Amino acid sequence: MTDVQDESPVGSDEQVNIKLLIEYDGTSFYGSQLQLGKRTVQGELEQALRRLTQEDTRVALSGRTDAGVHAQGQVANFLTRSRHDAGTFVRALNALVPDDLAVRRAERVGPDFHSRFSAVSRHYRYTIYSSPSPSPLLRLYSMHVKRELDLAGMSMACRLLVGEQDFAAFAGRGRGVPAGDDELEPDEAHPGTTRTVHQAELSCAGETGRENGGNLIIFDIVANAFLSHMVRNIVGTLLWVGRGKIDWRGFATILRAKDRRLAGPTAPPHGLCLMKVTY
Amino acid sequence: MTDVQDESPVGSDEQVNIKLLIEYDGTSFYGSQLQLGKRTVQGELEQALRRLTQEDTRVALSGRTDAGVHAQGQVANFLTRSRHDAGTFVRALNALVPDDLAVRRAERVGPDFHSRFSAVSRHYRYTIYSSPSPSPLLRLYSMHVKRELDLAGMSMACRLLVGEQDFAAFAGRGRGVPAGDDELEPDEAHPGTTRTVHQAELSCAGETGRENGGNLIIFDIVANAFLSHMVRNIVGTLLWVGRGKIDWRGFATILRAKDRRLAGPTAPPHGLCLMKVTY
Repeated sequence: MTDVQDESPVGSDEQVNIKLLIEYDGTSFYGSQLQLGKRTVQGELEQALRRLTQEDTRVALSGRTDAGVHAQGQVANFLTRSRHDAGTFVRALNALVPDDLAVRRAERVGPDFHSRFSAVSRHYRYTIYSSPSPSPLLRLYSMHVKRELDLAGMSMACRLLVGEQDFAAFAGRGRGVPAGDDELEPDEAHPGTTRTVHQAELSCAGETGRENGGNLIIFDIVANAFLSHMVRNIVGTLLWVGRGKIDWRGFATILRAKDRRLAGPTAPPHGLCLMKVTY
Repeated sequence: MTDVQDESPVGSDEQVNIKLLIEYDGTSFYGSQLQLGKRTVQGELEQALRRLTQEDTRVALSGRTDAGVHAQGQVANFLTRSRHDAGTFVRALNALVPDDLAVRRAERVGPDFHSRFSAVSRHYRYTIYSSPSPSPLLRLYSMHVKRELDLAGMSMACRLLVGEQDFAAFAGRGRGVPAGDDELEPDEAHPGTTRTVHQAELSCAGETGRENGGNLIIFDIVANAFLSHMVRNIVGTLLWVGRGKIDWRGFATILRAKDRRLAGPTAPPHGLCLMKVTY
């Protein structure tokens, strides 16, 4: 863990910028962002880096994920004087972090790279398990819905999300979110409530090899940035469509009204996963 | 939970035979079979049935799974005087068992049905995650292997498993299995160490949507019955082939020698899942 390699002509005192690709199981994290006295992704990463580099390092993440939300493709970066090569950072950090968190890749990037401000789009996936009975093997990574859902209606509603729009209807805390969860916070990179959704699609996969399985319903959404709780609020409202409480026209009305109080409840965090951040 | 329906003309004192399709996340179970003072699948099911039916019910499983092994398609049956319909058994039992265990289906079957002795074949799946870095989101349901594996060699070794053969080489405890785990136990339905493997196949799925993912290597094996630890011992030996320690000829030699001491270590339980039992 101590093989120090100087990969490029930088002075020994100069800081280099390291980009990390991070995966975590959000089940036991109190979200991604550092919070005093709470177990967070940033906190675990910074603690591991302190042990590895003997520096007090601040890790920046591409965006915050709430308590219970997972990530396959979270991106982080930090400045360090340490001269480990990328492979050493991966191996050494994985030996230091708990097993519900892992560094999948490390690379040295230019000084201007910032995991949050350099990001041009984020891809989130929400997974719904639709079946009369629950699945213990899927329970940690999907929301279980007993009733059969109107997938055609939900797909039509999805199409309304694409484009540059004001998503105030889906911003911030919804019913079902416990107090103490984070409220709307200002996003310096993307002020206001207008965001550009590049893709919003529903797909359905039957389960292979299951005698009495249900359907996995996957909601993929890609946008330049997201408001706090936006994906989970959208899913809660899509489920209103799925259950026949409203149709896609009702969904359009809610979106256009820009009033959070009209939209559906916030879907639970464990169905959500940050898949990829694009730079 | 109390709607009692008499579905067929049986006397109120007569017992009916109920078949259950069971799924569980084996992570926190000390195996499937009842053990005093240990949390087991059978123990949780019997406790829930006692609460639901007020009877002291013995649940029979199709076969034992070891501590940490998962099941999508375990089958159980029990005799009861209770007259709940199948849907009520599913809903009521799921309300009473912990969320790492679920009843996926219930049906009334004839008095001769026995989950273990009526079974004609079992399908197990072992999942290996091959990647230089670990995956927190897959860690509970797959064995992580860092080195790249020789899949062609492993596939060739798999073919040697098919047919009616003496599998003594893969029977019982192997290196790496902690003491206290169950030793070889007699199987009244299938004495001796000869079993018939109907299918043994390796497939490989790249991961979609992962920037720096690895490969999911799936080993599916179907047989009339299995010896204790047989699948995990086979996988441990297949991994010797995958890592180049032996080739398929070496695998054949081990199989033919019928000597457990020559075979590879027992692969960890959390990669294994009982997929389906056929009657």
